[in-house]
Amino acid sequence: MQSFEPKDPDFGEKVKRSFNRQKFMMLIGARLASVRPGYCEIHLPFRDDLTQHHGYFHAGVIGTLADNAGGFAAYSLMPAGQTVLTVEYKLNLLSPGEGQFLMARGEVMKPGKTLTVCRTEVFVEKEGNRKLCATSQMTLIAVAGWEEVN
Amino acid sequence: MQSFEPKDPDFGEKVKRSFNRQKFMMLIGARLASVRPGYCEIHLPFRDDLTQHHGYFHAGVIGTLADNAGGFAAYSLMPAGQTVLTVEYKLNLLSPGEGQFLMARGEVMKPGKTLTVCRTEVFVEKEGNRKLCATSQMTLIAVAGWEEVN
Amino acid sequence: MQSFEPKDPDFGEKVKRSFNRQKFMMLIGARLASVRPGYCEIHLPFRDDLTQHHGYFHAGVIGTLADNAGGFAAYSLMPAGQTVLTVEYKLNLLSPGEGQFLMARGEVMKPGKTLTVCRTEVFVEKEGNRKLCATSQMTLIAVAGWEEVN
Amino acid sequence: MQSFEPKDPDFGEKVKRSFNRQKFMMLIGARLASVRPGYCEIHLPFRDDLTQHHGYFHAGVIGTLADNAGGFAAYSLMPAGQTVLTVEYKLNLLSPGEGQFLMARGEVMKPGKTLTVCRTEVFVEKEGNRKLCATSQMTLIAVAGWEEVN
Repeated sequence: MQSFEPKDPDFGEKVKRSFNRQKFMMLIGARLASVRPGYCEIHLPFRDDLTQHHGYFHAGVIGTLADNAGGFAAYSLMPAGQTVLTVEYKLNLLSPGEGQFLMARGEVMKPGKTLTVCRTEVFVEKEGNRKLCATSQMTLIAVAGWEEVN
Repeated sequence: MQSFEPKDPDFGEKVKRSFNRQKFMMLIGARLASVRPGYCEIHLPFRDDLTQHHGYFHAGVIGTLADNAGGFAAYSLMPAGQTVLTVEYKLNLLSPGEGQFLMARGEVMKPGKTLTVCRTEVFVEKEGNRKLCATSQMTLIAVAGWEEVN
Repeated sequence: MQSFEPKDPDFGEKVKRSFNRQKFMMLIGARLASVRPGYCEIHLPFRDDLTQHHGYFHAGVIGTLADNAGGFAAYSLMPAGQTVLTVEYKLNLLSPGEGQFLMARGEVMKPGKTLTVCRTEVFVEKEGNRKLCATSQMTLIAVAGWEEVN
Repeated sequence: MQSFEPKDPDFGEKVKRSFNRQKFMMLIGARLASVRPGYCEIHLPFRDDLTQHHGYFHAGVIGTLADNAGGFAAYSLMPAGQTVLTVEYKLNLLSPGEGQFLMARGEVMKPGKTLTVCRTEVFVEKEGNRKLCATSQMTLIAVAGWEEVN
């Protein structure tokens, strides 16, 4: 894992504020577990209403965590007054989301003034065993001023 | 749009049954709007708890609809006793999900015995104007017997 | 297919100039067959030295045509003095590249001041029958001044 | 990097044989530099006829190396009598391919009986400095008997 210098010393607090304004995170019960420059980790305990037709975590939930973990990893490196938008991501689902807990972690691979490229991994924990269930590669774009909108 | 012959005459009902077993669809309030062979359309009215930090539809919600619309489009062409799993998808987010309504449609591009490739489009409707907000290209794999599990 | 207004009336000529400066296109024998605003088509006759281990068109050749067809489709909509770079693409290989001829076409799905999203399709022709062998979804970024560099 | 047990003790030789049958690799001058179980590295010295319009390595060449490095990494884990086909890949181009040398390495992330997921990285070397210029995430499928065809 690379080590990055944050451009905004307030990076940790602004990621938290932004995460806490995402009502969809509250709806599903996700929790921001860790933020470092270029890194973000999100946790989500199992709930029956987050499932697909076999009772496992829905792929949409897995994709949501991956997108957010990568997005906040990128956001942590933005200068003050800038935020990021996801341009696109590609997600491979490697194993069914069967377990009691999801852990998503996003890492910046290549920071940039305009575009940032991240990788994410989502693990599912079942009876104490952690298994990689999804991985993504994503592109984000820096945009000015958005954070102040809300 | 291509026209496909379903291998299972029950395709419409089995897509409905499968959709209705996805509790996450109920949680977010999504509705299966249309199923044809190789095609599926899902609708979702805006709700405040589906939003990201600017009050728009969360990208995770948009990705969830895209994945499901493509997945059910592929499932509609499966023979009886087979279902599909998403192998991977790549989603481009083209415009913010700002509006009162999301409509996702998935279409099979290339059906196959093992792998099926779909495209999906997600539109957001704002004051009666429909705008393309995301599009994806996805790969699914046929698997035996799963539908019966649950 | 959408219809676009070119920002540079010279779009056709500048695409040709740029294509003709790509020595790799000459090496493989590719030909720029058609350019319209937001659209580009590239043709490539079979040659034995373009093959993989079964004697079909190499996936790298197929990917190259897809990337270029999408890239020039995007470039055709750029204003004078700007060019595009591929940010990323996702390519599904749908059928083996078995045949005498490849035809790649790229279309702009969503033009933008900074980012442009394209789709491409690559067909292989075998004894007069055209088959879709690959499709991609790609993101490009506008950059200033590059065209003049060379 | 994970460590894998090859299912075919002949894995190294069969990757070489397969690589050497790819005439396109000869055309561009690529060399198989290293094969380990679940890992493959390909080298390519600069040549003027491999370039795009600014005189850098063409993205199609970069994508070709990435696809092949990942493909052979996956192939190295196949049992005797099976080979792999690329289902799809997603490639981010991170820096221009400006330099004297390309090095692509592919690694298996998740091997599987049917599907294998790989990651690849392509580096460009310029005056002794190595820079990451592209990275991909790809899906491959095992198929029987193909290797014997040719």
